[in-house]
Amino acid sequence: MTGPETFRGLVGDIGGTNARFAIAERAGGTATLSGVKVFETDDYPDLYAVIDAYFEQAGGQTDLDFAVLAVAGPVVDGEIHFTNLDWVVSEVELAKRTGARTTRLINDLAAIAYALPHLTDADCHLLGTVREGESKTLSVMGAGTGFGAAVLVEGRTCLSTESGHASWAPVNDFERDIHKFLSKKYGRVTIEMVLSGPGLVHLYEAITFVRGEPTLDLTPAQITNLDGPDAQGSRYTVETFFDILGSVCGDLALLHGATGGMYIAGGITPKLIKYLDEGRFRARMEAKAPMATLVESIPSRVITHPYPALVGAANALTEREIRA
Amino acid sequence: MTGPETFRGLVGDIGGTNARFAIAERAGGTATLSGVKVFETDDYPDLYAVIDAYFEQAGGQTDLDFAVLAVAGPVVDGEIHFTNLDWVVSEVELAKRTGARTTRLINDLAAIAYALPHLTDADCHLLGTVREGESKTLSVMGAGTGFGAAVLVEGRTCLSTESGHASWAPVNDFERDIHKFLSKKYGRVTIEMVLSGPGLVHLYEAITFVRGEPTLDLTPAQITNLDGPDAQGSRYTVETFFDILGSVCGDLALLHGATGGMYIAGGITPKLIKYLDEGRFRARMEAKAPMATLVESIPSRVITHPYPALVGAANALTEREIRA
Repeated sequence: MTGPETFRGLVGDIGGTNARFAIAERAGGTATLSGVKVFETDDYPDLYAVIDAYFEQAGGQTDLDFAVLAVAGPVVDGEIHFTNLDWVVSEVELAKRTGARTTRLINDLAAIAYALPHLTDADCHLLGTVREGESKTLSVMGAGTGFGAAVLVEGRTCLSTESGHASWAPVNDFERDIHKFLSKKYGRVTIEMVLSGPGLVHLYEAITFVRGEPTLDLTPAQITNLDGPDAQGSRYTVETFFDILGSVCGDLALLHGATGGMYIAGGITPKLIKYLDEGRFRARMEAKAPMATLVESIPSRVITHPYPALVGAANALTEREIRA
Repeated sequence: MTGPETFRGLVGDIGGTNARFAIAERAGGTATLSGVKVFETDDYPDLYAVIDAYFEQAGGQTDLDFAVLAVAGPVVDGEIHFTNLDWVVSEVELAKRTGARTTRLINDLAAIAYALPHLTDADCHLLGTVREGESKTLSVMGAGTGFGAAVLVEGRTCLSTESGHASWAPVNDFERDIHKFLSKKYGRVTIEMVLSGPGLVHLYEAITFVRGEPTLDLTPAQITNLDGPDAQGSRYTVETFFDILGSVCGDLALLHGATGGMYIAGGITPKLIKYLDEGRFRARMEAKAPMATLVESIPSRVITHPYPALVGAANALTEREIRA
């Protein structure tokens, strides 16, 4: 008796400041990660030097069936140009350097979309009480340096989107005032312009203006510092951020047909989760008449797993693609 | 020498007032429609009676490999309840009545999404000059009785959405005023609330209010009657409708990752196309900084084919699914 075929891969998640790597073992549809290590990209001349350093720390290069890297940016013809790093990485060169049979570069939000069916209750914080959606179509939105979203259609096909650059829809007088202020100051008002690190600053500027309060020169970290000994943050800004996050969560559920579930990734939400009022968030998410009943049935989760893009990179390829 | 295997199917498009049927011949990935006939649903007790009438008019029932019906509404567990017709149709019963081996009910916008790769230049009116998109991911939005959208991911997987019920995003002072008026009068302001037949009435109400003009009690047909001998329409409303259609077209391109192309279906746009200023439409569609360059590369087309849902129903199943 033999078990299912086992595949070994190198998986990575390459952002602007950090590169994370791990070894993935795939067997019978389940992937196990080991040897996760994080590197500062500034310390290396190119990505292949980081990979060499990873294998050195991990005890030498190993035989690889596949290598999948999640990258912060658009992959065009199997190649990514990291603008802020001056790095170019290609699937062809990655195959040469690692010896992996099959290599793939994928957008980092797309990688997280591939991870969604593999995340357990322990990897997420459930918002509200709905645990099971009506389909296998899932969507993930990430609020961090920027805002992105990707859809996993029927649990298998990944759709990359530019949802963060879609127009933001205000829903009440207060938000219309914020929208007007940002529109006059910055031109176009996108989802990313309010739901990201820079978005916290934009919201703070607009809210203090609308409320006739002084606008201090604060960073996102200062704006969201509500309880520390040097707390100078804006509770109103943080509350509005989560109100808009709930509203956009419900809209993306409709726009992406994501009746299976909505997931929130990115650095901001887990960090501020103690300020997130779940009932208020779900109320904003579900305020989607005449589709309120549909949206009420859609679960919403904050991803708390530290490396969801690595989980996704490990699961992105089918076994047939790995064998190819 | 034998040609590719040929499959014969019954395809239909069942709306609230009309049912259209045709016979589809599938061979080597190409589908040919013949014997298109249109029926008034009011004249029949149930859908199976319409199918009987179709076969009678078409010269008798034929051996069928498949039957695919596009239906205006959500398909749940292979069944659709037409609320305004009091009809129930199921894939199981459809197989019994038609003798088709494989039967499928699909949402009508999803059916049009399946048609997109099969539409030729003669079936569409190109808006602007861009003819080729950067991917095979296509999105179709339909403005008619309601507003819907569906995505064909990488030319194969269909994603049904509820995009018409997402929040509408105004982009300038005039639209924020319209948004505020509709928000106060109707509560939530969705895309469907402005981009549909009833949407034309909502826009007319809001625009006359904002401009301080009398609001007459007009139907959508009257509002869009700008040139006839009894013209009493509102040019401002029609222009605003197309401005918003262009804006939403660009947003859905981003939200659906539809870099392959955007398509406009539904009854309103072809009927009013003489009032659509292509340059102005593309300017609104492309006003998506910082993603303007991306959206500029995405073609946009109005579907002028009379039966796109029938074309899609003929192409929805894979040959493998037909054989199953």
